[in-house]
Amino acid sequence: MTGNSIGKIFRVTTFGESHGIAMGCILDGVPPGIQISEEDLRIDLDRRKPEIISEEGISQRSEPDEVKIISGVFEGVTTGNPIGMFLKNYDQKPKDYKSFKNIFRPGHADYTYQKKYGVRDYRGGGRSSARETAMWVAAGSIAKKYLKKELGVVIQAYLSQVGKISPKLKEWGEISKKNFFCPDSSMVLKLKKLFSSLKKKGDSIGSKVTVLGRNIPSGLGEPVFHKINADIGHAMMNINGVKAIEIGDGVKVVEMKGSQNRDEMVKNHLFLTNHSGGILGGITTGQDIVVHVSFKPSSSIKIPCTTINHLGEETTISVSGRHDICIGIRAVPVVEAMLAIILTDHFLIHRGRCT
Amino acid sequence: MTGNSIGKIFRVTTFGESHGIAMGCILDGVPPGIQISEEDLRIDLDRRKPEIISEEGISQRSEPDEVKIISGVFEGVTTGNPIGMFLKNYDQKPKDYKSFKNIFRPGHADYTYQKKYGVRDYRGGGRSSARETAMWVAAGSIAKKYLKKELGVVIQAYLSQVGKISPKLKEWGEISKKNFFCPDSSMVLKLKKLFSSLKKKGDSIGSKVTVLGRNIPSGLGEPVFHKINADIGHAMMNINGVKAIEIGDGVKVVEMKGSQNRDEMVKNHLFLTNHSGGILGGITTGQDIVVHVSFKPSSSIKIPCTTINHLGEETTISVSGRHDICIGIRAVPVVEAMLAIILTDHFLIHRGRCT
Amino acid sequence: MTGNSIGKIFRVTTFGESHGIAMGCILDGVPPGIQISEEDLRIDLDRRKPEIISEEGISQRSEPDEVKIISGVFEGVTTGNPIGMFLKNYDQKPKDYKSFKNIFRPGHADYTYQKKYGVRDYRGGGRSSARETAMWVAAGSIAKKYLKKELGVVIQAYLSQVGKISPKLKEWGEISKKNFFCPDSSMVLKLKKLFSSLKKKGDSIGSKVTVLGRNIPSGLGEPVFHKINADIGHAMMNINGVKAIEIGDGVKVVEMKGSQNRDEMVKNHLFLTNHSGGILGGITTGQDIVVHVSFKPSSSIKIPCTTINHLGEETTISVSGRHDICIGIRAVPVVEAMLAIILTDHFLIHRGRCT
Amino acid sequence: MTGNSIGKIFRVTTFGESHGIAMGCILDGVPPGIQISEEDLRIDLDRRKPEIISEEGISQRSEPDEVKIISGVFEGVTTGNPIGMFLKNYDQKPKDYKSFKNIFRPGHADYTYQKKYGVRDYRGGGRSSARETAMWVAAGSIAKKYLKKELGVVIQAYLSQVGKISPKLKEWGEISKKNFFCPDSSMVLKLKKLFSSLKKKGDSIGSKVTVLGRNIPSGLGEPVFHKINADIGHAMMNINGVKAIEIGDGVKVVEMKGSQNRDEMVKNHLFLTNHSGGILGGITTGQDIVVHVSFKPSSSIKIPCTTINHLGEETTISVSGRHDICIGIRAVPVVEAMLAIILTDHFLIHRGRCT
Repeated sequence: MTGNSIGKIFRVTTFGESHGIAMGCILDGVPPGIQISEEDLRIDLDRRKPEIISEEGISQRSEPDEVKIISGVFEGVTTGNPIGMFLKNYDQKPKDYKSFKNIFRPGHADYTYQKKYGVRDYRGGGRSSARETAMWVAAGSIAKKYLKKELGVVIQAYLSQVGKISPKLKEWGEISKKNFFCPDSSMVLKLKKLFSSLKKKGDSIGSKVTVLGRNIPSGLGEPVFHKINADIGHAMMNINGVKAIEIGDGVKVVEMKGSQNRDEMVKNHLFLTNHSGGILGGITTGQDIVVHVSFKPSSSIKIPCTTINHLGEETTISVSGRHDICIGIRAVPVVEAMLAIILTDHFLIHRGRCT
Repeated sequence: MTGNSIGKIFRVTTFGESHGIAMGCILDGVPPGIQISEEDLRIDLDRRKPEIISEEGISQRSEPDEVKIISGVFEGVTTGNPIGMFLKNYDQKPKDYKSFKNIFRPGHADYTYQKKYGVRDYRGGGRSSARETAMWVAAGSIAKKYLKKELGVVIQAYLSQVGKISPKLKEWGEISKKNFFCPDSSMVLKLKKLFSSLKKKGDSIGSKVTVLGRNIPSGLGEPVFHKINADIGHAMMNINGVKAIEIGDGVKVVEMKGSQNRDEMVKNHLFLTNHSGGILGGITTGQDIVVHVSFKPSSSIKIPCTTINHLGEETTISVSGRHDICIGIRAVPVVEAMLAIILTDHFLIHRGRCT
Repeated sequence: MTGNSIGKIFRVTTFGESHGIAMGCILDGVPPGIQISEEDLRIDLDRRKPEIISEEGISQRSEPDEVKIISGVFEGVTTGNPIGMFLKNYDQKPKDYKSFKNIFRPGHADYTYQKKYGVRDYRGGGRSSARETAMWVAAGSIAKKYLKKELGVVIQAYLSQVGKISPKLKEWGEISKKNFFCPDSSMVLKLKKLFSSLKKKGDSIGSKVTVLGRNIPSGLGEPVFHKINADIGHAMMNINGVKAIEIGDGVKVVEMKGSQNRDEMVKNHLFLTNHSGGILGGITTGQDIVVHVSFKPSSSIKIPCTTINHLGEETTISVSGRHDICIGIRAVPVVEAMLAIILTDHFLIHRGRCT
Repeated sequence: MTGNSIGKIFRVTTFGESHGIAMGCILDGVPPGIQISEEDLRIDLDRRKPEIISEEGISQRSEPDEVKIISGVFEGVTTGNPIGMFLKNYDQKPKDYKSFKNIFRPGHADYTYQKKYGVRDYRGGGRSSARETAMWVAAGSIAKKYLKKELGVVIQAYLSQVGKISPKLKEWGEISKKNFFCPDSSMVLKLKKLFSSLKKKGDSIGSKVTVLGRNIPSGLGEPVFHKINADIGHAMMNINGVKAIEIGDGVKVVEMKGSQNRDEMVKNHLFLTNHSGGILGGITTGQDIVVHVSFKPSSSIKIPCTTINHLGEETTISVSGRHDICIGIRAVPVVEAMLAIILTDHFLIHRGRCT
């Protein structure tokens, strides 16, 4: 198993703890001949980084987040050899976390890591921190670039729900980090107010991220146990804080009839609707892939609650400091990265076998 | 990838088409010394089989479904060698399906299999048929038996929603196949009426299945890419017709605040609530595992619709014959099987490394 | 791990014990569109089977060895879905083996299976019997057919040494089963005499099998841990009784100088020699692949020796009955099969990534 | 496949080119609670490093070879999370290699990398350089430490043959780097003379390394495709320059009779001999594991020969500079590392399933 790898022939393997020396990853199975630079990676990493909008719901860790490419790229081009990447942790403040050394933060992995391994790097959640996802974004950028160049695939995620606020996608162009990746600019102010109010109360809120893949080739997916929806679901479910994955109509299918849900076909191989989210029988249809990912509200909040320490004694905890009010926002590029990694892996497998 | 395997060191690999000679599987990595008989497997397979309640929403394929164990069990006990299993297809009626030879049934895998492979066994969906899941149930029975004996783990699934009908679980004992695995017997009549009405109209309905795992040891799960929720999600998403996976509070977390969602802890390592569904940071907490699986309404319905044939020409299709009105019912033992397989795989990995 | 699978995206998984109901395998990841029949498989299986030459060194188990294809082939053509195959064990005589129920045969896996699993199917070696390799040959036949059609690859193995007798390959055509796969017909009589003499004494002899692959495309192999020589070596080392694997010049390189061993190149991308066995840096050069596989003498011999029983008590054992005097002979098609499986797997991976 | 990983649940993944920024690896699946320091790793890395004996056959690259541990170790103890390691390449002299930019060095991977990937980092062999094995040694040190502490396993390799010189092992203690890992100190002078003579001539010589594993538990190995000998063979065959792998009696079995080769057993579960090299049926017997690894003579020699450039034109090449006269010497700790990695992986799998 070795939990720290994802993908079969295009595979990401990661290491690193939130407040250790660095985060890092190896991207193996990369096709040769892709033009890649550290600048390319920075674009997506910057989308993951909190910045100006720190007041309204994004963690304030102000690290440069400059990924260094160590290998696998020669004279600007991938060589087919593994790409080692490296991201220094400049903003190490282990003291901030010493107070939680022996306390299990509710809703966090502190308790389960301790139970599983018997030892635990308690600094900022150690390995369980969402800082880990920076490397996923770096690897995903390379996958995105490959898919775009090779197949014209475009991947775009956005914030589709926060609490009871549900912005709808109109134009892809409107989605930007400074608007919380909200696809409807008219609802940004509403979101800002919600985040401000939560910040004052010391609370957080759940959210949903929707990701679309366009220009997807048909035929990707390996039934019966590596259906493309299953591998996408698997990848997304690994993102910190995710509690639900929906494909196409998602949980709404429970209340639908067969006559409403099936997508009729007409000549020129066109589907009249896309209830399926672009996947039938675990294989892409060629329509847009549509996936919804539900994030729980962050458990790192100021409002105090009861918990226990390593001796099993009860205590009260209140988590102050730089924490996300709505983790779905920063997760937008992470969701895109996971979709890109899975699609690339499946494309290479499919092309090898079914050419 | 080789799509037809699931699990890393406890692994199920399957083969077979719906109307071929037989279905079969190999279960590899089985611990030695488990008492297993073909009778044991029959219990779960019978739960998956439609029978008396054929009028109200269950497919009527009346096969004996008697799995034959070919290897890996000697003198009634597993030897640690791979268990080969075999299930004959007695009820082969390929003629029934000849009419669909060149037509793509909307909502089915016909179109995508053709696009992926260029050839297709059109008889009853071939490899994409849900008959495949019979072998998953057989393999899952062995996993369940091992988990029960070794750890006291009990796994139970039930029908938690059909359309707008949402029965709640009261007592585990009440759940039985003849009540559609509905956990509230007072709602069975309501379900029957719904199914009868749909049958008359030639339509189908979506559903949700909830599965619980009890007496789960803490510490199972391999972050950061084989979190137990990710591997469970992956397994479930491979079941035919699944469109959403939820862990614990699931999609409800989107509307929740951090102060509502986190599970506080008190002395004796107890959690006051179980919003997390028994998983934190991708590792089991020791609480009940709670997973919800949403099934789309079957696309095999009598109400006609438009589709295309292999030449891209439009045609009208109406699927008559023996088909599920609500596929979630027969999926109940399948959902249990997938949870059992993943838990066994993770338990063996965890025990090897962290003893 | 789940030890019973080999190959990454073209994968064989097997089950079955020597004297159980049947042997079987699943071949997953097969490219669609290959014409395959049970007749095709029979050719190689017959080459593995002992027959007329029973007097001179080949086991006499006279089973029909007719593999049944259960799935994955539709109207004579592979569908891309897993191929389930099945080989009945007609010649079950468990009584023959009851005498060894509690005795560990020296040189066999009896002791180690008992130590590993705690239980053991003692009938004819159970899972550790070389009968298992029948399914490898069946799977290999499909791989061979694919390689031949897709790339023109031809694979041929022969008996290159028995004791101190070392026949040299002259013409591929001369190699046939009735000559013990000896490549030099002038040495067949010498072999016959050796086998007769050993049979009288109740002893056995070691042997070496050499396999050649022709028309191999350059570029196959995945450094640094799935070099093609490493994956070939792995596959071969799994064959029953193998104690050494050599690539190209093999162990002779120990006594060679660099100036003798390197293969010089001249224009038209030609190599002047093939000391490397067609592999440099773990990747095929396009020259012939040359692999030598050393088989130990069978431990199933009449000459008695000391061993222990399950209580650790000493006893004497003499193994009579149908046993190979020289296991390398029947291993010839097995060695070919393993090379074909590994080459197919690597070709599909390479084509997917480096097209 | 993703060629750059080895091991199933204890897995090493590497990256880096000989003259790039750094080499690195991720060691995943490490049991928690092992005391590890960078000092520990240095011991084995120093054994791999050439030093005083530069005149007599060891490459002279004088890098510090100080591996930095980036993650997975907290307060001196492994946490069960992946260990990221990093080794800077201080001695980068890409200019030395520019002359070979477009020339394929015979016996090297230049030609095959170019054919496979279409692009190539030509500096010092890039990814195909034996410098890569430094990270294998680092990972192997952790495996060794774990095996020693957990099971008392001791692993020791030595130079067992160079050309026609075949020193025999007498005492483990005598084996040291300054004696070329030659197990018989009386033969060291002979080796020195051979190396000096070859250096003058600008030639190199082949060699054999033998590795022993002591205090091995019985029961390790996963038939039928992950036999311990197959996985060991696979690991060793990946080491640069390896052309043959032998287990126990190795190629000698070809000339042996069954009555000579089988290891008789006597009471107390003792074997009278160890022809098998500690493995029967692919599973450890509990005896010493014995593996022989044959290395070809280095192809980097001064004696000129013919080759071609990237245009297919003929040219003459002579490789001067710092190169190994006998690559088996520095390979000694690499061979030990690979055995340690495979044994650890198999031990964790076996313990998980068969406890």
